[in-house]
Amino acid sequence: MKPKATFYHAGCSVCVSVEQALGQALDPARYDVEIVDFNTAPDRIAEAEAAGVQSVPAYVIDGQPFHINFGASMAAVKGVG
Amino acid sequence: MKPKATFYHAGCSVCVSVEQALGQALDPARYDVEIVDFNTAPDRIAEAEAAGVQSVPAYVIDGQPFHINFGASMAAVKGVG
Repeated sequence: MKPKATFYHAGCSVCVSVEQALGQALDPARYDVEIVDFNTAPDRIAEAEAAGVQSVPAYVIDGQPFHINFGASMAAVKGVG
Repeated sequence: MKPKATFYHAGCSVCVSVEQALGQALDPARYDVEIVDFNTAPDRIAEAEAAGVQSVPAYVIDGQPFHINFGASMAAVKGVG
């Protein structure tokens, strides 16, 4: 089974540019890639935070968080920042 | 011709963990990937800075910089930080 790679974003301008460049950049032969937009899937925020995501856009690959550039903090995503 | 994707790092612990997870993660059918370690290729620092790299590890994909987590500033890489 391929490791799961989840790209979390929130529709911000940095998120969108990173998604366009990297959202589908991972090798599909090596990763099972999913793209999650918190605007349409706010129920996934808790899972991202549990994986260690502190800002978006970010990839969580095989459970490990990778923050790519800086779009928005998770506090801002949750509307409490 | 495939877009060039260059992964710049400096051998720091964050760099190494990101390289292990993402250094070869991009789809080789879509990108011409190169990994540059400033320890062995200090002559590549100027090119990374010209592309907008502010910290390592970072990918420059088709000329656009993507900073992944934070290992070291370019000032630290150059020994002036």
